[in-house]
Amino acid sequence: MSKSLDFLTEALRRLPGIGPKSAQRMAFHLLQHDREGAAMLSRALYQAVDTVHHCAMCNTFADTEICDMCADDARDHAMLCIVETPADQMMIEQTLTYKGLYFVLMGRLSPLDGIGPKDLHLDKLIARAADGVVGEVVLATNFTNEGEATAHYISEMLKARGLKVSRLARGVPVGGELEYVDAGTIARAMLDRRSA
Amino acid sequence: MSKSLDFLTEALRRLPGIGPKSAQRMAFHLLQHDREGAAMLSRALYQAVDTVHHCAMCNTFADTEICDMCADDARDHAMLCIVETPADQMMIEQTLTYKGLYFVLMGRLSPLDGIGPKDLHLDKLIARAADGVVGEVVLATNFTNEGEATAHYISEMLKARGLKVSRLARGVPVGGELEYVDAGTIARAMLDRRSA
Ligand SMILES: [Zn+2]
Ligand SMILES: [Zn+2]
Repeated sequence: MSKSLDFLTEALRRLPGIGPKSAQRMAFHLLQHDREGAAMLSRALYQAVDTVHHCAMCNTFADTEICDMCADDARDHAMLCIVETPADQMMIEQTLTYKGLYFVLMGRLSPLDGIGPKDLHLDKLIARAADGVVGEVVLATNFTNEGEATAHYISEMLKARGLKVSRLARGVPVGGELEYVDAGTIARAMLDRRSA
Repeated sequence: MSKSLDFLTEALRRLPGIGPKSAQRMAFHLLQHDREGAAMLSRALYQAVDTVHHCAMCNTFADTEICDMCADDARDHAMLCIVETPADQMMIEQTLTYKGLYFVLMGRLSPLDGIGPKDLHLDKLIARAADGVVGEVVLATNFTNEGEATAHYISEMLKARGLKVSRLARGVPVGGELEYVDAGTIARAMLDRRSA
């Protein structure tokens, strides 16, 4: 029928979790009922690809070289909390129990998926944690098998360099992913963090 | 963190069936693992909004004024099959049982959603069916309550203009075992039984 429509349906399948039927339904919906939304999404994608990169300090997504949080002098630069994703970082921020800075791994060690220490840019983390200002590193990776293994690996790596390392307390249910745990549980785990 | 990322997450929510968590997951995935896919989707959306409109004859999505199928002299221009969506049209094409043309309603009558005859552009359908070439109109709207009501409305409308109108047969699906077919379908199949 329409090559442009076929191209759009094909492109929508690049979104995670979207199969052929869903992609077709989305394409029809946008063209029939929400062309303004389609144009907006087109611009948003272009702009994001063009401007979003990784903060030079904390590795999270940012529009500037150093993100707003890392540039904020009101935060405690002696504390560095390590999380897997920006979503986890947001969850911890919502608990209002932590005023330090973050390092966002953008993943976790996962040998089965071929993700090793090099893929996580742990060299960037080491350089960051060894800046002479950071006094304590709080490991807040998920309490899944992979998150625990990642925490253990990073803990050994940083302790070998003389850094104080702690881990969120096990208030977080074993197997739980931070993104889906309530803020109260995370708050208690932050307060009860233990040395790792 | 990143205004561009927030804008992208917000824009992804314009897609049908995508909530805040899914939108965030999609945005992270695209920026972390598939920027090429994100750029491709941006272009596809822009191109589709720019070029896709409705075929002047059949009302389906097309890049040209008249779509390829309506312009195809090898098809039977005396038959006009009426469907709700382009997806329904594709399903019928896959059966290889129909060689006529189509009219795509791009919806159905749905008083509860405020979709009346004017919203479906039935004036365009009347003009199309009364071109003097169309000899039979086949109603292939869905066999839902709304699809049936739509078929009934269109049928009355076209028959009043002297056109021959038919409806896809209802009955037990091919391969269907009576034990697992709902009673309403069996009842209709019994009433519509044909000589064998
Ligand atoms: Zn940062
Ligand atoms: Zn057409």
